[in-house]
Amino acid sequence: MVEERDRAIKYAHDNRARFLNELKEFASIPSVSTDPAHKGDIQKAAGWAAARLEALGMKNVQIFPTTGHPVVYGESMTAGEKAPVVLFYGHYDVQPAEPLELWESPAFEPTLRGDNLFARGVSDMKGQMLAGLFAIESIQKTSQLPCNLKFIFEGEEEIGSPNLAPFIASHKDLLSSDVVLNLDSGIIAEDFPSITVALRGLAYFEIRVSGPTSDLHSGMFGGVVHNPAQVLCELIAGMHDDQGRVTLPGYYDRVRPLTDEERADMKRLPMDDKHFLRITGAPALYGEAGYTSAERVGARPTLEVNGLLSGFTGEGSKTVLPAKAMAKISMRLVPDQDPAEVHQQLLKYMEKNAPPTVIWEVIQMAGGFASIVDRNTPGVQALADAFQTVWGKPVGFKREGGSIPVVAQMQSILGKASILAGFGLPDDNLHAPNEKLHLPTWYRGIDVVIHFLFNL
Amino acid sequence: MVEERDRAIKYAHDNRARFLNELKEFASIPSVSTDPAHKGDIQKAAGWAAARLEALGMKNVQIFPTTGHPVVYGESMTAGEKAPVVLFYGHYDVQPAEPLELWESPAFEPTLRGDNLFARGVSDMKGQMLAGLFAIESIQKTSQLPCNLKFIFEGEEEIGSPNLAPFIASHKDLLSSDVVLNLDSGIIAEDFPSITVALRGLAYFEIRVSGPTSDLHSGMFGGVVHNPAQVLCELIAGMHDDQGRVTLPGYYDRVRPLTDEERADMKRLPMDDKHFLRITGAPALYGEAGYTSAERVGARPTLEVNGLLSGFTGEGSKTVLPAKAMAKISMRLVPDQDPAEVHQQLLKYMEKNAPPTVIWEVIQMAGGFASIVDRNTPGVQALADAFQTVWGKPVGFKREGGSIPVVAQMQSILGKASILAGFGLPDDNLHAPNEKLHLPTWYRGIDVVIHFLFNL
Repeated sequence: MVEERDRAIKYAHDNRARFLNELKEFASIPSVSTDPAHKGDIQKAAGWAAARLEALGMKNVQIFPTTGHPVVYGESMTAGEKAPVVLFYGHYDVQPAEPLELWESPAFEPTLRGDNLFARGVSDMKGQMLAGLFAIESIQKTSQLPCNLKFIFEGEEEIGSPNLAPFIASHKDLLSSDVVLNLDSGIIAEDFPSITVALRGLAYFEIRVSGPTSDLHSGMFGGVVHNPAQVLCELIAGMHDDQGRVTLPGYYDRVRPLTDEERADMKRLPMDDKHFLRITGAPALYGEAGYTSAERVGARPTLEVNGLLSGFTGEGSKTVLPAKAMAKISMRLVPDQDPAEVHQQLLKYMEKNAPPTVIWEVIQMAGGFASIVDRNTPGVQALADAFQTVWGKPVGFKREGGSIPVVAQMQSILGKASILAGFGLPDDNLHAPNEKLHLPTWYRGIDVVIHFLFNL
Repeated sequence: MVEERDRAIKYAHDNRARFLNELKEFASIPSVSTDPAHKGDIQKAAGWAAARLEALGMKNVQIFPTTGHPVVYGESMTAGEKAPVVLFYGHYDVQPAEPLELWESPAFEPTLRGDNLFARGVSDMKGQMLAGLFAIESIQKTSQLPCNLKFIFEGEEEIGSPNLAPFIASHKDLLSSDVVLNLDSGIIAEDFPSITVALRGLAYFEIRVSGPTSDLHSGMFGGVVHNPAQVLCELIAGMHDDQGRVTLPGYYDRVRPLTDEERADMKRLPMDDKHFLRITGAPALYGEAGYTSAERVGARPTLEVNGLLSGFTGEGSKTVLPAKAMAKISMRLVPDQDPAEVHQQLLKYMEKNAPPTVIWEVIQMAGGFASIVDRNTPGVQALADAFQTVWGKPVGFKREGGSIPVVAQMQSILGKASILAGFGLPDDNLHAPNEKLHLPTWYRGIDVVIHFLFNL
């Protein structure tokens, strides 16, 4: 195995220039999923990915139409029944490139500057997708694949994967696997390899409070009518206690406590208070008492106000007593919270705390479970060892505050937790102008995937 | 005198259709003082008012520029030295019409439905201004004016009359008078004539709270950054205690307590809880413990949220942790509160309660003292008798919750308490969509002003 692995690594190193050229070709396709004008480019990118799978000798390569953008599938089941099946997830769509004038080189003309390749999608996630494929090619061309492989590439990740859950649900057998690898992520720093072991879930609501039937003169009625904006502020203020804890009834009941091991792991991450102060520019940090900043964003549930609107908000002054007030609020959830239960908790909170002087309504906007992967599974261990070998350092296990619906969907439909990793860096300008990929890190990433497949 | 008065009344009745057309013309001008985009309309409305004074044969008609919107002046000093000088105050500016979509007919296309004329400004106060002018015309065309007249019409009442006080102070002789009549008010009910003997003052502020330097991803940073919208809600929630009292330090120190006589007077007014419930449509009333609704709006100070804005307020969901949040709040003041002191009280409250996790700023937008008039003066008696004659009922003396800074300013600069009356009704939707004027009441109002001028 060692010799075969070394041959694959050597092949990967020898072919870096060609790998880079292929990435440039893929990143030249402006496969912007949110923009109907790019529908043809989306088709082109799906075709490019399918052709790449076929060139790798994958079997059963198909482009499945959906009501939105197509799903690309392929497989290689030659490693034998005892070898594990690894499902590679990827997305071939990208974010819009606007504002175009802020790009130093055109978004869809991949341009090398120093160690970085600049183009929309190189980090998120065309480069990551290809890192997997080039690792597989490097093994294939020099020995035999040690694992069975399946691939699912979608074209709607950047618009919330609306058609992926139905596709997965209706192709459960086709997608059955032992390990799911999702490379749509990155490492903490160039010299700090990491694997994302948890993502937070989301529950998003709009709260509407109304009182009088129309806006009133604040002089003629101020004092006898409960101001809906004041009531909304009182309700929102009551949603946190003075320890920064969320007060919705039962909110923490299902929250999985952090183990000492997890807390020790998180302490190792370069995510201390200085880091958060520098990156946010906030005058001081805040959060739930008893937890570090890394724990607060990664492992603890929160409740945020995303928007507030009431009354007169233009220039100048208007003495109105508004008829209504609106807030958008969302909760980031952690295992094992249930977005539907959180909805009920919010309703209970409102029932208990909203005064009889107003009418209120809670509208659910979005929801998804948190996800977490057990770091002691063979898949995670194989990847951790691969990183350790290539970087010469132990990997960090991080919990991420954001939400990726497809990860939770795969977990709930296929029953498999995704291993989330990747070779992007925090300053890759994802979703922003001048997106880039750090090539030395990316090349190491290809080696990591080679090691991972042999480690399994 | 009786014959002359009757001729004037007959003229007024005969000309109602034309009076209505002139009001429609005046109300078609969108003279929104707070919006720079309407500067031209403000000029147009000032010119319209000046032309109307000239058409009435007023002398010395002038449009005085100010650093803001102009002041219109005119006079008629033909009644002889022994006749009293009556100073008519008016304002030709109006509130913004937003939200436009809630108007049943366009805000600046005056529309008749039943007995009501609908348009922004018809009640507040273009209709009231013209009621005075039409009364004067009715006397002029049928006999001789029994009083000397002066007019001062401003264009900044709805933004707190920032330039009127300096103008009055530098034109004291021009404005000297025996009686000041301000018709920027209304009566309690269609069948209950009233004169306003007190007004609340106003202190208006914008509070800005900011935290991170730019909007953040609520997943990646929710939990470590104190959400400015949450902080703003907490600050606003803390401004009232559970008895409905305002918690700013020292807020009630100067508040003049109500006498038993005043409380008895207010009890007689048709302003019970049922009245306020019906007129506002609120599901239940609210207010400071220990006071009736009439006392709460007329004789007690309040604090209202006039506007709230933060983060994402469009359709759908956006998981943003907003960098900033804004509230417009205003206090209605009673004698003898001082708006400058209230500003200091708000700053003290913020200093004490705003957490170190945010940066905040308080911007003063407008301010004015409360005012109160002695009901036993000849001017008030002349007007009370005029109402009694036209309505056939004794007038009620009420304290009003609104604020008219100019009333307090005139009192302090000219030494004259304004007599405050008008022919609006409580459900006129002032400052709200579908503002209207009840025409039968307005026509009676023109008669009242005719009687008032002959009574003096």
